[in-house]
Amino acid sequence: MVMAEFGGPDVLTLREVERPEPGPGEILVRVFASGTNPVEAKIRQGVAIPDLELPAVLGGDVSGVVAAAGPGVTDFAEGDEVFYTPELTSRLGSYTELNVVSAAIAALKPRGLSHVEAAAIPLAGGTAWEAIVRRLAVRPGETVLVHAGAGGVGSFAVQFAIAAGARVLATAGPDNQDLLRDLGAVPIDYHETDPVEAAFEHTGGKGADAVLDLVGGENVAKSSDATRAFGRIATVLPLDGELRSLYQRNQQLHGIMLTRERRRLEELTPVFERGQARPVVDQVLPLGQVREAHERLDSGHGRGKTVLDLA
Amino acid sequence: MVMAEFGGPDVLTLREVERPEPGPGEILVRVFASGTNPVEAKIRQGVAIPDLELPAVLGGDVSGVVAAAGPGVTDFAEGDEVFYTPELTSRLGSYTELNVVSAAIAALKPRGLSHVEAAAIPLAGGTAWEAIVRRLAVRPGETVLVHAGAGGVGSFAVQFAIAAGARVLATAGPDNQDLLRDLGAVPIDYHETDPVEAAFEHTGGKGADAVLDLVGGENVAKSSDATRAFGRIATVLPLDGELRSLYQRNQQLHGIMLTRERRRLEELTPVFERGQARPVVDQVLPLGQVREAHERLDSGHGRGKTVLDLA
Repeated sequence: MVMAEFGGPDVLTLREVERPEPGPGEILVRVFASGTNPVEAKIRQGVAIPDLELPAVLGGDVSGVVAAAGPGVTDFAEGDEVFYTPELTSRLGSYTELNVVSAAIAALKPRGLSHVEAAAIPLAGGTAWEAIVRRLAVRPGETVLVHAGAGGVGSFAVQFAIAAGARVLATAGPDNQDLLRDLGAVPIDYHETDPVEAAFEHTGGKGADAVLDLVGGENVAKSSDATRAFGRIATVLPLDGELRSLYQRNQQLHGIMLTRERRRLEELTPVFERGQARPVVDQVLPLGQVREAHERLDSGHGRGKTVLDLA
Repeated sequence: MVMAEFGGPDVLTLREVERPEPGPGEILVRVFASGTNPVEAKIRQGVAIPDLELPAVLGGDVSGVVAAAGPGVTDFAEGDEVFYTPELTSRLGSYTELNVVSAAIAALKPRGLSHVEAAAIPLAGGTAWEAIVRRLAVRPGETVLVHAGAGGVGSFAVQFAIAAGARVLATAGPDNQDLLRDLGAVPIDYHETDPVEAAFEHTGGKGADAVLDLVGGENVAKSSDATRAFGRIATVLPLDGELRSLYQRNQQLHGIMLTRERRRLEELTPVFERGQARPVVDQVLPLGQVREAHERLDSGHGRGKTVLDLA
C-alpha cells in the first residue's frame, strides 16, 4: 500500500513493489497483520515528517513470520513469529506483505496472541509502557489519571497502570465509558465532568500521583493542575500556553516519543502472556481497506486499535 | 523592617515590633545576617503572594544564634549557631533582629563561614541544591548549562554542578563573564552567543545533558532545544509558549519551588565546609539600607547575593 504523495486517505494505493532483500543484521518478515496509528495519518498529511522521501510505505506495527535472515543475524531464524515497530522515518512501513527490518528492534511475538492482536501492540503499547512503567514509574497504591484512556495508547496505559497496582481514572467521550469500565478504570466523561475536579475528588484533595496526557497543547497545563505536589506528568505531544503549577508544585514532566528497541517489547510481553493486559482491537480490515482505517484516524475518535489483516 | 503595604522599595520601613516568643517546637533566633532574594521583591510588589496579611516582615534567609528554645525543642539549645529559610508565607521574615521559626526547618550553620556568608545560602543555595543534586541528579562527565549563572541561585548551581563532576556552561551578561570564569564555568555572553549553539558546540552536536533554566517563560523552550535526547531540564519559574522538543527528544522537565526542610541544609553544608563551593556575596548592607538591596532586586541584574548585616 504505497503513498506517492502527501494528502487525504486516497493517496494510499495498492501497488506491486520490488521484493525487499534483508541486508546485514536485517530480517525479511512476511507481514501477517499491521497496526494503524495516528502518527501515520499525520505523516500521510505531510505534517509529521514533511521531508519524507516518496514514494513510501506507511505503517508502524508488524506482526509476522521471519521469511529470511540477512548476513550476521543470529537472533532469529526462518519461521520465527516476531512483532515490532519499523523505524518512524523508514520508507518501509508495515502496510505491506513483506517488510525488511533491523533484527535489533524485533522481538518474539507474545505466545497465545493472534497476529492481529500482536500487531496492535508495538507502537501504542510500547509508548504506553515507556510512559507508565519506565518514565512515570507507577507504583501500587497510586492514583493515575489517563487523558484519552479509550484510544490506542490510552487503552494500553490504563491496563499497565492497573497492572502496576494503581487506581486509574480515565477520560473519554460518552461512547467509550463502557470500554473504560471494562478495562478496570474509573471512567470520566469529559463532556460532563472536569477531570481536574475528578482527580482531586478521588484523592482527598491532593491530586493524582501521575497523569498521562495524550491530548497535548493546552491540556498539559490542566494535567499539571490535576497532579499533586511532587507528582509526575507525561505527554506524547507538544505542549502550549502558560504552565505555572509545574514549578509551584515541584512536579516533573516527561516528554515521550517512542524509540525502537527490542528490550521494551520483551519487557511488556509477559504482561500480555499472563493476561494482565489485552490489546483492544476495535476493527479488523483487509489491507485493501486501509483508507477506511485512515479516515477513522483523521476523525480523531479512536477506540482501541484498527488492525489490517494480511493473513 | 516592616512592610505595611505593597509597593516600591520605600514601603519597607524600620519599626519597633513586639518581641516574638517561641511556641512549642519553635526557636527564637537572634538574626546576625539576612539574605535578600528576588522572590522578596515580588512579594513586596504584591505579585507573588497577593493575599499576604499585612503588616509583614519580608526576608527568606537567616543566619543567627538561638536565643531561646520553645517547649519540646530538643535539637537546639541557646547559643547554637543556625541558618534556615523561614516559610514563604510567613509574616515573620528575616529582615529583623529576632525571628521565631519551627526548629524542624533550621540547621546548624556551616563551620568556618561567617553569618553573612551563611545567610547567603539557605534559599538560593537550597534551590540550586534541589535542582542540581536532587532533581537533575548531575553526574561526573556530564555537560550542564546554567542560564543566568551569575545570579543568586545560578552562582550556587554552577558550583554544585562542578562539584558533582560536570563541566558547566553558564550564561550571563558581559559584566559577569569574569565571575562565571572564577566559579569554574565556561562563560557564555548571551548578548554575543546563542546558548543553544554553544551547548551543541561543546557536546559534539548532542546537546547538554542537563539544563537549569533560571529565566522561565519562553526561555524554557530554548533550554529544551539545548538539551540532548533523554536529557533533563529544570525551571524555577512558570513556562510559556510552545514546547515541542520535550517530547521529540524524550526529555524530562522538573519544576522547582523550594520547600523548607532541615535535611537539605544538612546535605549541602559539607560542600561549603570543605570548600567545594562558596557563597558569592557581592554586597553587604546594614538592615537600614534594605531599600537599596530591593532596588537592585527590582533591576533584575543580580550578581551573587546582597546580604544584610545585623551583627
